[in-house]
Amino acid sequence: MKNEIVTVCRKAHFNATHRLHNPNWSDEKNEKVFGKCNNENYHGHNYNLVVKVTGPIDPETGYVIDLKLLNDLIMEHVVERYDHKNLYLDMEDFRDVNPSAEYISVAIWNILRPLLDDSLLLAVELFETERNFVCYGGPAN
Amino acid sequence: MKNEIVTVCRKAHFNATHRLHNPNWSDEKNEKVFGKCNNENYHGHNYNLVVKVTGPIDPETGYVIDLKLLNDLIMEHVVERYDHKNLYLDMEDFRDVNPSAEYISVAIWNILRPLLDDSLLLAVELFETERNFVCYGGPAN
Amino acid sequence: MKNEIVTVCRKAHFNATHRLHNPNWSDEKNEKVFGKCNNENYHGHNYNLVVKVTGPIDPETGYVIDLKLLNDLIMEHVVERYDHKNLYLDMEDFRDVNPSAEYISVAIWNILRPLLDDSLLLAVELFETERNFVCYGGPAN
Amino acid sequence: MKNEIVTVCRKAHFNATHRLHNPNWSDEKNEKVFGKCNNENYHGHNYNLVVKVTGPIDPETGYVIDLKLLNDLIMEHVVERYDHKNLYLDMEDFRDVNPSAEYISVAIWNILRPLLDDSLLLAVELFETERNFVCYGGPAN
Amino acid sequence: MKNEIVTVCRKAHFNATHRLHNPNWSDEKNEKVFGKCNNENYHGHNYNLVVKVTGPIDPETGYVIDLKLLNDLIMEHVVERYDHKNLYLDMEDFRDVNPSAEYISVAIWNILRPLLDDSLLLAVELFETERNFVCYGGPAN
Amino acid sequence: MKNEIVTVCRKAHFNATHRLHNPNWSDEKNEKVFGKCNNENYHGHNYNLVVKVTGPIDPETGYVIDLKLLNDLIMEHVVERYDHKNLYLDMEDFRDVNPSAEYISVAIWNILRPLLDDSLLLAVELFETERNFVCYGGPAN
Repeated sequence: MKNEIVTVCRKAHFNATHRLHNPNWSDEKNEKVFGKCNNENYHGHNYNLVVKVTGPIDPETGYVIDLKLLNDLIMEHVVERYDHKNLYLDMEDFRDVNPSAEYISVAIWNILRPLLDDSLLLAVELFETERNFVCYGGPAN
Repeated sequence: MKNEIVTVCRKAHFNATHRLHNPNWSDEKNEKVFGKCNNENYHGHNYNLVVKVTGPIDPETGYVIDLKLLNDLIMEHVVERYDHKNLYLDMEDFRDVNPSAEYISVAIWNILRPLLDDSLLLAVELFETERNFVCYGGPAN
Repeated sequence: MKNEIVTVCRKAHFNATHRLHNPNWSDEKNEKVFGKCNNENYHGHNYNLVVKVTGPIDPETGYVIDLKLLNDLIMEHVVERYDHKNLYLDMEDFRDVNPSAEYISVAIWNILRPLLDDSLLLAVELFETERNFVCYGGPAN
Repeated sequence: MKNEIVTVCRKAHFNATHRLHNPNWSDEKNEKVFGKCNNENYHGHNYNLVVKVTGPIDPETGYVIDLKLLNDLIMEHVVERYDHKNLYLDMEDFRDVNPSAEYISVAIWNILRPLLDDSLLLAVELFETERNFVCYGGPAN
Repeated sequence: MKNEIVTVCRKAHFNATHRLHNPNWSDEKNEKVFGKCNNENYHGHNYNLVVKVTGPIDPETGYVIDLKLLNDLIMEHVVERYDHKNLYLDMEDFRDVNPSAEYISVAIWNILRPLLDDSLLLAVELFETERNFVCYGGPAN
Repeated sequence: MKNEIVTVCRKAHFNATHRLHNPNWSDEKNEKVFGKCNNENYHGHNYNLVVKVTGPIDPETGYVIDLKLLNDLIMEHVVERYDHKNLYLDMEDFRDVNPSAEYISVAIWNILRPLLDDSLLLAVELFETERNFVCYGGPAN
């Protein structure tokens, strides 16, 4: 066996609060478009996150990337940043865009991308609930 | 087969925000006891709820209670009440106590108990996360 | 450690079809009470079954009951009997009562009870869907 | 952040009955090929469905597609159509082909495709049981 | 609301290796009784553990027991002890009995019981696999 | 409907023991790189495996591949081979490389590939735990 390309995945989670609201719109339009997600006192989710890293196996270790190291990166740079936070109020990451699951997945990808070796591919999957989830694999070329 | 006592269970879920804070305590004590759960801008959860009703099977239907009816009661009286709400700010249910998983389960039990026939037993199980959950079966005699 | 009472559980599943219908009622009443579950061409479920056996640990093996043996009993007497069957049409078990989750759990308990040693307690949990499930622990004394 | 391509997913479920049978074959061949799935009185499943829609994020809302709208489309056009139905007997969708998981996923894709904007990609994942599932992303070019 | 008795649960997990073998028996009997679980080179499981603590809610906090504290106890005294260990070779806990799921659950209960206030009840649930699990609530009176 | 390309998936599981160790390295380096996974007495996992086969639907059956046949191949060639085994000690498959999740997934792919028709694509997903998993789709061209 040599040089096989494998994807390794690590799951993490964090709890956070958010609210969807477009300040350029009237209250009526916000209420109509975002419904209960526009509640001015916020609502929250247990976010489940899957980080997927693709690359060749290192034959010395059998690893694409040490999952303990990957987990440490996720904990330090993503979970510490978002856990038990109000994503709408507390975070400048979402100053210009809504903290929708879509934009949170993009933000997480943008946080992790520079922390990984350029030879590795990265994708993130974010579950807002068991029934709603999103996937982002980086900007299209 | 006759008069068998069976427990029937129905699962539901709602998303909500909360914060743990005791107004009789100093900020330091609140921070020390509740940690990240004391964040003044709130945090949230996807709550999963299991409602358990115990009683004899009606031989005409094969039901202890029509699960569609039980689901309607849960949706109307619990999910409508708490979904996408800020349990700390919006709800008088938690004016005098913290919206901890423990007290939310007690509140849900107290809401549903009068809606069910006296001959039926009731218990509720509430998952704050996949790893933290509570069960309440009514006041001890 | 000696004589500790432990509950051991084994999960199994089977796929089956059923329909809820009371032949003593009018079509209107059947439709009103059972709704979509009354569909004359049947509908089906992936049933998940948990069998729970309680008793003392045998210090020679560390077992309450050999789970392989328990699994063989479940496969031979329950899964073989109900899997890929039409519970309403094919089974005399439900000639006099509806194949509701409640009565299926009672039927399974009645099948397994005589196959286990009298010193062991038995309970069954039956999931009709992820959201609807029932528990039966034998006739009340 | 702009113009990121994200996949958003929504989960739904329905219960249905089916039977696998090729009317051009002898009973022996049907029995040999389809085994228990050929049972003339049908058997059923709790189908879990994941609908995946890929496209750019709308910066006004943070959405690829409003998941509430996507859910309404799934409920109205797929769940209403198949839930508590006998796919072999009741549905003309499977007049010429077996209601196998493969063909059900193709049928669902064909139902949803014209309801979505042409700029969005669509894929469906269908779980017949926890252990058997299929994915379909549209006809190969 | 006052003095309600609630059960709070915390989930944890650890990976370990074991082997079932009774040194008082012949190789044939060990092979016959324990089958593949008798493999002399061991086999392993991802154990999932649920610790359940029952007691009154403290009205000051809304807690039966601080789940962070309970988690710390589980991590320090159970997970640190068993994670990535060979339960048959490394642990004196199972010198006289097999590291069956039954006896592991008893050992965990015996570890945690003295660490909790006497007023609290304790039960443990241990999943050896998704299909095999056990529950222990302490010695019968 | 004709000639649609669908992916069909089948889930299986096995329990096994492993240890990560590079014999060309010092004990210190092994301990530093592999941490608890280097424990000389091994540790174990419940591996969950998903095998994914992609190809056109056979219009006679509605199948891409008979899932019962696929399951038989997985049981006979993969589960029988690895279940309740010590992958580090018992298996020549991992004589030259570590039994990491990455290399186990490659080994399983290499076992199954020659057993399937050339017209079918193959990918495997292997869960070492709920939080750590890998995917392999064959050697890159």
